[in-house]
Amino acid sequence: MDAAQYRDSLRGYAPRVFVEGQAVACVADEPLLAPGINGIGVCYDFAHRPEHAVLMTARQGTSGKTVNRMTHIDETSTDLLYKLEAVRLLCRESGCAQRYLVHDAANGLFQATRRADLEHGTDYHARFLNYLHGVQERDLTFAICMTDAKGDRSKRPGQQANADCYVHISERRPDGIVIRGTKAIVTGAPYVHELMVMPCRTMVPEDAAFAVCCAVPVDAEGVTIVSRRAGRPGEAAAKFSAKYGQSVAAVIFDDVFVPWDRVFMAGETEEAGFLTTSYATHHRHSCIAARAGFGDLLIGAGALMIEANGLDPERHGHIRDTMVDLIKIVEGFFACGVAASVYGAKDPSGNIMPDAVFSNIGKLLLATQIYDMHRLAHTVSGGLVVALPGPDEDHNPETAASLAAVLGGRPDIPSSQRAEVARFIEDLTVSNQAGWYSVISLHGGGSPEAMKREIWRNYPVAEKAAVVERLLDRGLLDEGRRVSKQPGRCCATGCDVPEPAALPVAAE
Amino acid sequence: MDAAQYRDSLRGYAPRVFVEGQAVACVADEPLLAPGINGIGVCYDFAHRPEHAVLMTARQGTSGKTVNRMTHIDETSTDLLYKLEAVRLLCRESGCAQRYLVHDAANGLFQATRRADLEHGTDYHARFLNYLHGVQERDLTFAICMTDAKGDRSKRPGQQANADCYVHISERRPDGIVIRGTKAIVTGAPYVHELMVMPCRTMVPEDAAFAVCCAVPVDAEGVTIVSRRAGRPGEAAAKFSAKYGQSVAAVIFDDVFVPWDRVFMAGETEEAGFLTTSYATHHRHSCIAARAGFGDLLIGAGALMIEANGLDPERHGHIRDTMVDLIKIVEGFFACGVAASVYGAKDPSGNIMPDAVFSNIGKLLLATQIYDMHRLAHTVSGGLVVALPGPDEDHNPETAASLAAVLGGRPDIPSSQRAEVARFIEDLTVSNQAGWYSVISLHGGGSPEAMKREIWRNYPVAEKAAVVERLLDRGLLDEGRRVSKQPGRCCATGCDVPEPAALPVAAE
Amino acid sequence: MDAAQYRDSLRGYAPRVFVEGQAVACVADEPLLAPGINGIGVCYDFAHRPEHAVLMTARQGTSGKTVNRMTHIDETSTDLLYKLEAVRLLCRESGCAQRYLVHDAANGLFQATRRADLEHGTDYHARFLNYLHGVQERDLTFAICMTDAKGDRSKRPGQQANADCYVHISERRPDGIVIRGTKAIVTGAPYVHELMVMPCRTMVPEDAAFAVCCAVPVDAEGVTIVSRRAGRPGEAAAKFSAKYGQSVAAVIFDDVFVPWDRVFMAGETEEAGFLTTSYATHHRHSCIAARAGFGDLLIGAGALMIEANGLDPERHGHIRDTMVDLIKIVEGFFACGVAASVYGAKDPSGNIMPDAVFSNIGKLLLATQIYDMHRLAHTVSGGLVVALPGPDEDHNPETAASLAAVLGGRPDIPSSQRAEVARFIEDLTVSNQAGWYSVISLHGGGSPEAMKREIWRNYPVAEKAAVVERLLDRGLLDEGRRVSKQPGRCCATGCDVPEPAALPVAAE
Amino acid sequence: MDAAQYRDSLRGYAPRVFVEGQAVACVADEPLLAPGINGIGVCYDFAHRPEHAVLMTARQGTSGKTVNRMTHIDETSTDLLYKLEAVRLLCRESGCAQRYLVHDAANGLFQATRRADLEHGTDYHARFLNYLHGVQERDLTFAICMTDAKGDRSKRPGQQANADCYVHISERRPDGIVIRGTKAIVTGAPYVHELMVMPCRTMVPEDAAFAVCCAVPVDAEGVTIVSRRAGRPGEAAAKFSAKYGQSVAAVIFDDVFVPWDRVFMAGETEEAGFLTTSYATHHRHSCIAARAGFGDLLIGAGALMIEANGLDPERHGHIRDTMVDLIKIVEGFFACGVAASVYGAKDPSGNIMPDAVFSNIGKLLLATQIYDMHRLAHTVSGGLVVALPGPDEDHNPETAASLAAVLGGRPDIPSSQRAEVARFIEDLTVSNQAGWYSVISLHGGGSPEAMKREIWRNYPVAEKAAVVERLLDRGLLDEGRRVSKQPGRCCATGCDVPEPAALPVAAE
Repeated sequence: MDAAQYRDSLRGYAPRVFVEGQAVACVADEPLLAPGINGIGVCYDFAHRPEHAVLMTARQGTSGKTVNRMTHIDETSTDLLYKLEAVRLLCRESGCAQRYLVHDAANGLFQATRRADLEHGTDYHARFLNYLHGVQERDLTFAICMTDAKGDRSKRPGQQANADCYVHISERRPDGIVIRGTKAIVTGAPYVHELMVMPCRTMVPEDAAFAVCCAVPVDAEGVTIVSRRAGRPGEAAAKFSAKYGQSVAAVIFDDVFVPWDRVFMAGETEEAGFLTTSYATHHRHSCIAARAGFGDLLIGAGALMIEANGLDPERHGHIRDTMVDLIKIVEGFFACGVAASVYGAKDPSGNIMPDAVFSNIGKLLLATQIYDMHRLAHTVSGGLVVALPGPDEDHNPETAASLAAVLGGRPDIPSSQRAEVARFIEDLTVSNQAGWYSVISLHGGGSPEAMKREIWRNYPVAEKAAVVERLLDRGLLDEGRRVSKQPGRCCATGCDVPEPAALPVAAE
Repeated sequence: MDAAQYRDSLRGYAPRVFVEGQAVACVADEPLLAPGINGIGVCYDFAHRPEHAVLMTARQGTSGKTVNRMTHIDETSTDLLYKLEAVRLLCRESGCAQRYLVHDAANGLFQATRRADLEHGTDYHARFLNYLHGVQERDLTFAICMTDAKGDRSKRPGQQANADCYVHISERRPDGIVIRGTKAIVTGAPYVHELMVMPCRTMVPEDAAFAVCCAVPVDAEGVTIVSRRAGRPGEAAAKFSAKYGQSVAAVIFDDVFVPWDRVFMAGETEEAGFLTTSYATHHRHSCIAARAGFGDLLIGAGALMIEANGLDPERHGHIRDTMVDLIKIVEGFFACGVAASVYGAKDPSGNIMPDAVFSNIGKLLLATQIYDMHRLAHTVSGGLVVALPGPDEDHNPETAASLAAVLGGRPDIPSSQRAEVARFIEDLTVSNQAGWYSVISLHGGGSPEAMKREIWRNYPVAEKAAVVERLLDRGLLDEGRRVSKQPGRCCATGCDVPEPAALPVAAE
Repeated sequence: MDAAQYRDSLRGYAPRVFVEGQAVACVADEPLLAPGINGIGVCYDFAHRPEHAVLMTARQGTSGKTVNRMTHIDETSTDLLYKLEAVRLLCRESGCAQRYLVHDAANGLFQATRRADLEHGTDYHARFLNYLHGVQERDLTFAICMTDAKGDRSKRPGQQANADCYVHISERRPDGIVIRGTKAIVTGAPYVHELMVMPCRTMVPEDAAFAVCCAVPVDAEGVTIVSRRAGRPGEAAAKFSAKYGQSVAAVIFDDVFVPWDRVFMAGETEEAGFLTTSYATHHRHSCIAARAGFGDLLIGAGALMIEANGLDPERHGHIRDTMVDLIKIVEGFFACGVAASVYGAKDPSGNIMPDAVFSNIGKLLLATQIYDMHRLAHTVSGGLVVALPGPDEDHNPETAASLAAVLGGRPDIPSSQRAEVARFIEDLTVSNQAGWYSVISLHGGGSPEAMKREIWRNYPVAEKAAVVERLLDRGLLDEGRRVSKQPGRCCATGCDVPEPAALPVAAE
Repeated sequence: MDAAQYRDSLRGYAPRVFVEGQAVACVADEPLLAPGINGIGVCYDFAHRPEHAVLMTARQGTSGKTVNRMTHIDETSTDLLYKLEAVRLLCRESGCAQRYLVHDAANGLFQATRRADLEHGTDYHARFLNYLHGVQERDLTFAICMTDAKGDRSKRPGQQANADCYVHISERRPDGIVIRGTKAIVTGAPYVHELMVMPCRTMVPEDAAFAVCCAVPVDAEGVTIVSRRAGRPGEAAAKFSAKYGQSVAAVIFDDVFVPWDRVFMAGETEEAGFLTTSYATHHRHSCIAARAGFGDLLIGAGALMIEANGLDPERHGHIRDTMVDLIKIVEGFFACGVAASVYGAKDPSGNIMPDAVFSNIGKLLLATQIYDMHRLAHTVSGGLVVALPGPDEDHNPETAASLAAVLGGRPDIPSSQRAEVARFIEDLTVSNQAGWYSVISLHGGGSPEAMKREIWRNYPVAEKAAVVERLLDRGLLDEGRRVSKQPGRCCATGCDVPEPAALPVAAE
């Protein structure tokens, strides 16, 4: 499908959607959702452009068919790297491509269903693969329903006074399961074809009813979507986010029936936790690319603003310095995504996981530095972003001309063009959209604390300690050492023996 | 006046104001300006509260009368410290009190007019004092028209193709002057009594027409005000800025006549530069307190959010750590304001200047760290800020109840109360108001680069170099050394002889 | 006493001292200790200089006598500020004046003995005052024996397998107590007159034997001092620390008898904890000034190096920027010391405590930023610090001349002078002395984590939360709120009612 | 050769070496140089270990022979990655492997000689290749003589009063050239076989005599080496650097004759500048790996110290947090090295250059963050580093036993073992060696400012600006835009068209 066909395909669904308190009659025509639909549309359109074919499409190994990379199961380091590049490419066009979530979930599910099958003798993997092939074939998009409402954070799912704080299996039937509960922060929920319900945390056996993963059509009976608008539709000052944006929604599942062929986990608490983690690793890797694409927009807009202000980075050292700081941040965390690709680890299921340490470091760096990116963009752009009257004044016959006469910078660049860049930067770094990007960068895919714990959990600290002990001519400490529970895997990050899997994978 | 009287007093003026392209009939009744009027109102109301009298009022030395501290001329370190406290107090109530700009300009003018008189034999100082006493007497507020539109940044005012890029004297008459040109970023312009036109940069003799400072009634003939709305009036989600905010406007002076008794500088380019700098030093000192008040709101809201989420900073170390980081930033830059007060320098005109080094460091720290403050507030508040549906959903009968049932945190705190704090934080750190606070913190009162240059210009580097030379048993280098042009003033920051002026001033 | 008399006075003592494994026959003549003795000597000499009298001496209120400020009990904010200035002045001469520890301990003891007396009916306060007056009269210096060896950090003092890990009362006799155990990190131990034994942590009643504070002559029977050398005595490259340095020692108390008039706490575990905290607050306040003095040396040396390299900060923006960063750090944390002085809190005992929040923030900032100070000093000084051959080459007839010919920078500054500054910077930022300054800045007076906990413990979080609740038009939460245990003290940092005690104290 | 053979091979040379003012009779036996020889020795030994063969050896394409990777010409991304891994492996054993400089220079020369030949019709490339094959064959090590003494930094080489400030051609003869002048900061100079003289800056045609590159045997007539000691030989406290270290020397060329077959550039100023840059890019890439190896040692030692102190990172969140910060820094800059490998660019000469943007960002990150690494290591290790008496006390019969009894931490780890780790950390982060590592990390391979300019020069800013212009529906600005001189190369970091060269290179 291309973007137009994708949009039209939404007419085939009749989800129950509220946007800002109002019921939506037709998602495909709803102006408040249009920027979100446009954003996903880029994922469709770019796959048809010959110059992007290498990045935007891939050959799905299990089916032999060429699919959109946003639905692909990665097999090599090169796949990981191409996905990274593809997401950056999409996000520097659309701000947030959204559809990479399909990729992240598909890869996590590919691994977790195999693991569950091995442990429990289930057939989730085949079921999921069957489902995935259908999604690829019909070029569908699904939204990820992961973050539960959670309720009292000091209690586990099974202990909540109100069980609906977490989506759970309320009934098991011969033909399927019934689920209920509420998921929050569902990106793009109103304008996708399917909802993928996934667990969001580690669980104990008592939480079995909450260890549920399944696919639900967006207009299944019992589903209600409560969404914010996507971007800043219709706002004249929104140079970017009037066109592209994303909706975030809460999704209420009120006893929704799901047939077994759409159920990919139902009670396996251990594997539910693994699914959460493996999805998160793929997703954090994708986030790195997404925010690097956002960084490209800031770098480009900053350069245009400097130019319109009549300044020259060669001569004004502090301007150049600020731009270099911005570049350093963006390429610095992007490099972590590249390293995570190169050091990707083969999963027993056959796909490849980006390295967890590098993925989490990259995500942590972008999460905390998105704020610095705003600061640097503001620094180079100067005060015009606040000095500029709103766009309504552009058409005020009593003031527009005299303001235009004095608000130019460099004489060969019209003041309207200067104003346009200033508003573009305002849109990306000052508006409420900018604020949302910040919070989503910080907390999306897990809080900074979650990232830090994951880095610690995966880092081969014991192996590094062993190097020092050897240098101190000591016998190595016994296995029971407390410094790290991580078994001394000889990781490729500075290991004694190069991991054979690492580069041959890249070299395929 | 109290807040209500101040608002009513605006009915006595008929300024030509456009807000977002629409002419405003009555400023006092304009909903889009109400948050700005409320903000300034706090400066009036608090002066009537007995518990704030020490901070909010002061005895003006030149008249012997008790005046609002926001219009006071400082005489001692204690004055500076009380102003600092007063501004913090006002801004943690109103976000931005705005009226401290009157203080900053009045003190800068007090110094610069005296200096001009000494050099040129003018009588600006008496004129200004006469004007100021009137302002104090009638408890008026004026807005500062400082930042010019500027045009081509590579050219001085006198070189611009379009002279209107800088406000200038277009005609000198026996009874006064005529000014024209456009000023940008004028805080509070629509809802003040007077506009104070001031120069914004250093100048050379050829720029004499641009070295102009004068007071103009807000509704003087030829004045047009093009303003943005103040805050987020009428928005349900705007828990704070629906009530308090600030307008920023461009002000067009289209041949406005100003009689001589309202003209405080007219052609003295050297002193115009001094006025810009001395105003800036007072203003940066005030900014420190303003943003510390904003910090108080973030700290308080963060604490409430943690509580509503059911978390305990004593047990969750990373939450406590984040709060401490936030406190460290806020009190860290506030401390620079305190030090600038203690080391204030007596001006020959009789008032006191906050120390330039500490004032600029404090402003620089807040300018760059406002972004970190947002990050830390987002970190402690968690994902609810993005998970929460908009306020319109609160009244959607089809979804409100089921969402309320699951979006609570701690059982003893209603979900509506939790939502309210989340929206308060969203308003302060995510909305476009939050973005504006960032940019204004960064560029208001001068860019970071301007602050750095001012720190360097004022720091006694030569004196520190001399200490090291003595330790190296060397003869001191001659006066011509390049390391600093700063004459070796024995500043109180680590000086050999404690500056006699410093603490006796505080001790008065 | 002046520095020479102080040094001679050490001949009156015969402590058992080992330096680097060798017994020291005469401390006053030991070259390895000379830099430490020189450092303390500055505290004596400067008190005799008329230009420093205001800072370096003070009138002790309890005796009416003029004493060295390093032994003074503070009574006003001005006292705190003058101590801050005095310590900065001393440390920019000597690197580390050491004797301010006497001040910090004396003030902590002044408070804690009074508190113990009120609680337990003891007479520690009078005893201590009597002792202190003697110290002031004879102008003595004592070292602080605080940090215990500690042993297993997971156990309290009373639980240790080896009780000697903490100094404790091993016997109570009618005429006094007997103490044993080992203290570590005792600054200046070999070359002081007295050792002040103090507890280093909070304790429970079972730890009573460890709640001991007493004064012991440095050569008391049973005392052994195991010391490192002070600075870098005799090293040609040590441009600064061959002259000034500090010794850090372990002190072993092997059943040392202490008569009752030298015992200031013996079993009062609650007040022992208070003593630790109040000492720490005074000490952290002093540390701020000490490291600001160190910062002065870096700023001065950096300026000389830039000059010798032939660079001009006015023209080379990145050099100026780096110097401003260095200034920003140094004056930024010094400002916290100033604010802690202004907001000092009167103690019931009659002296004044620097504000705990500002003191801890200042110490935390210097602790973590000393590393940045090194980085910035290295950045401005360029590569000469590593390019320069060692000082032995200066006298190598085969190479000295040809190296001198090419290692100059600016033609009017001899290469020897350039080399001298480079070695000065190397001494302060590259040598093992530099490394020690880093670690002592980080951990001295408590680890960063200890500072953070103290900031949290003392910050009026509840008061800030109350402001927000009021703005949200809510009833205030009840007292039991978890956000902070801090009773809502109305601190002066942004308080509703200005603390009456604050500035009148400064004004005395 | 293995390490022993390498050491013995040094006996075949008789260089004129002074270490700290004393002539060295036999380099191979000089204790003050032993740690440096050990360090290079690791590069030889590891190449013989089967488990390191993949990383430590490579097949030189121009000769078909297997060579030590430290002398290899890279042909693929995999080569770059393996070099990166190899350098990290070597440096986490030896601190600084030194010999990677051979690699960096060889690759730079490979490119620059080809470029010079194409431009000037010279035969430098063949000459150099012939020389290199000899070096590889005989497994030699050469030192890089790059940084000139420089003299007055405001003048170019050809303008210096004393021409010897830069090494230059003093005479051209039929059989070769004569060079004179002094090079500074030559790593490992005394204990290598050859000295490689290279230019260190951009030049103009008038500087032709200074555009010289040639190889000189270490004991050529007229060469004098003035060296510092390597590491901390013979110091009991130097747990690491008594064994491994590096010498830095000044090398005086006093009319040294070099035959033509050892001359690789002689007057080609344009290509001399290119050689400096291409060497620098390879070298910065290597530096990333070197300091990552150093980071491994800090991480490992930190873990051991935590363990010996009896702390558990799982329970003590701030300890875990600090370790994660350390890991984040080390792997964060290492990732830039990986990305620079993946996006390496084929040079027309046939080898591959690491991407300049990523290489410079990685180097810049490590240069500025080495100080943070020290801070974090100090934070986790606690105060023992300063509390511990020196190693001489270990053998003091009067104190050793009682100190050992109290200086243990966890009961199952002997206090001697705890002390050993503390001294290891002291050696790496507190000693003068630690200081040297800092300065060399900061300035080695160019100052931070040099890195920033290189990032700016190489970044495709114009291409990013074009993306934004397209989004703003504008015609693209013309070529003359000032924002960047960089031709809009379609780099692989977020490009529209994936660079065909990028991954196929990795895949070879």
